[in-house]
Amino acid sequence: MKTIPLLEPLADDLELVERKLHEIPQPEQPQLTAVLNHLLGSGGKRLRPALALLAGRFYPTDLDKLVALAASTEMLHTATLVHDDLIDGATLRRGNPTLNASWSPGTTVLAGDYFFARAAALAAEAGSVRVMTIFANTLMAICSGELRQIFDRRDVPRLDDKQAWAAALGRYDQRIEAKTASLFAAATEAAAVLSGAPEAEIVALRDYGRLLGMGFQIVDDVLDFQGDQAELGKPVAGDLREGIVTLPALYYLHDHPEDRRVAMVVRGTDANERLVGDVVAAIQESGAISQALDRAGEFVTRSQAALAGLPDRPPRDTLYALAEYSLSRRR
Amino acid sequence: MKTIPLLEPLADDLELVERKLHEIPQPEQPQLTAVLNHLLGSGGKRLRPALALLAGRFYPTDLDKLVALAASTEMLHTATLVHDDLIDGATLRRGNPTLNASWSPGTTVLAGDYFFARAAALAAEAGSVRVMTIFANTLMAICSGELRQIFDRRDVPRLDDKQAWAAALGRYDQRIEAKTASLFAAATEAAAVLSGAPEAEIVALRDYGRLLGMGFQIVDDVLDFQGDQAELGKPVAGDLREGIVTLPALYYLHDHPEDRRVAMVVRGTDANERLVGDVVAAIQESGAISQALDRAGEFVTRSQAALAGLPDRPPRDTLYALAEYSLSRRR
Repeated sequence: MKTIPLLEPLADDLELVERKLHEIPQPEQPQLTAVLNHLLGSGGKRLRPALALLAGRFYPTDLDKLVALAASTEMLHTATLVHDDLIDGATLRRGNPTLNASWSPGTTVLAGDYFFARAAALAAEAGSVRVMTIFANTLMAICSGELRQIFDRRDVPRLDDKQAWAAALGRYDQRIEAKTASLFAAATEAAAVLSGAPEAEIVALRDYGRLLGMGFQIVDDVLDFQGDQAELGKPVAGDLREGIVTLPALYYLHDHPEDRRVAMVVRGTDANERLVGDVVAAIQESGAISQALDRAGEFVTRSQAALAGLPDRPPRDTLYALAEYSLSRRR
Repeated sequence: MKTIPLLEPLADDLELVERKLHEIPQPEQPQLTAVLNHLLGSGGKRLRPALALLAGRFYPTDLDKLVALAASTEMLHTATLVHDDLIDGATLRRGNPTLNASWSPGTTVLAGDYFFARAAALAAEAGSVRVMTIFANTLMAICSGELRQIFDRRDVPRLDDKQAWAAALGRYDQRIEAKTASLFAAATEAAAVLSGAPEAEIVALRDYGRLLGMGFQIVDDVLDFQGDQAELGKPVAGDLREGIVTLPALYYLHDHPEDRRVAMVVRGTDANERLVGDVVAAIQESGAISQALDRAGEFVTRSQAALAGLPDRPPRDTLYALAEYSLSRRR
């Protein structure tokens, strides 16, 4: 597990989360334990549990319940990754040989389902119906967002006028809110609920999580255009290759409506490696990357502003700094 | 929706469940609504909701909550079917062209996930942490059972002595308990919890559900060997073809250790259509089918016996009759 330096004060609590994550109540399937250990061991920063641990500490909270909730957010995240990898694998299979062959699709689907169930059980351990409702709604939002992403694939947005641009940006925002920000928001909101925080502070912490998640995902989408294949362990601009238009590509398309190459890559028609390389270079060299990072910065600033209404206690400073960190991070 | 005559008195409540099932809170994905309507419209008997509605009516219960719980059991069942179809489809794809091509595997995985989330949200509407815990544990059991089934595929059990036979039967029981009986038990237990039934009656209703589920699944496994392809809409002995040894095959193997053809079909080596037909005919004509049905009958009798400790109120008679029905049903 990589640690983020500013989360050192949370080390003990994060260790409890770690133990909770590795508990499998019915270890009758050794294969399941092995795959869980593999997934949990592959470098997650435990950002979602950290958010829950911080958001739940403005008031005295039952630590066991908070740890269960924190573990639940990471388990839910892990479950979605299992299914995402399967879906991406299925897509890549068509043109690209990078595929984990050790698990069949059926087993992968069921393993993901099992982790969803485990996440639900951990959330139930928090002992709050309201937390369970947040959990279920978040999972619906995530699936809905992923489905939207699939249905929108290979779709080149029209950006000819202000209205079309606003609509395209709105669709992008909805998608990243559903697939990423919703779980950040669930982590902070549910933890605040558990701690018995006043309603206005629950809303503030939910807003913080959501806005931070938006900024975080935009940075992720920018990072997808940076580095090279050897460094990333996967092709640069993986989203674009799969026909998914993220914010940097959206800004580039907006500023270079005459460049037909982007649409060719997105549509997957006649998109050879050289064309993809040219398009990626064009986006990297344009202002699109810094425009996207500016927008991420705006979300992060807004997330920090949401903290203003919270009591001036230590977790507030850490949450503030964590927002800052999310902008500066590298893969 | 097919109705079971003896459930007529529940018609109004089942109609409420039906409405609840068709509600999609964020209908932003018309494709999701379409697939949900298709799945729900394809002939389910709503047995799990009926069990919940009956088990929850020994004491005055909040009807809205009970309906939400009942709907949650059917939604969970539907979600598992979506993923099962995908997994079976993936298996069949290798040698057999029967595959629903209208949804990609990725979309199918996500649709199933969405229905799991929706099931969790419905369970949360019941407003009980204990119900949520039952829900989560049941989903874990189901996934674990399905995984066991995959890992056991193509495995011909050793039946050479009494101990080996008991072990093979035990593995079969564990598998059907996880994949079917656990959800029946969850429906009756959770409904009893909601109704505020005394602890001993909760246990009795859970036992009833579990034992009924065991009998029900054995009948299902027998039905898989009966009828013909035109009638079933799928090949006879689908389980055996996929290398899954169910109770009729287990009894046949026990009584005919000399017949090597079963192992050939299970292992999928050299299993042509003629060989499969011969093996199916041999099993049909042997005593294996009636041995399996006898065992289903024992489970059903035990499920009825579990009802003895419950108050003598109308739902008890219906539950008793429902157990009887589960033995007599045809597809």
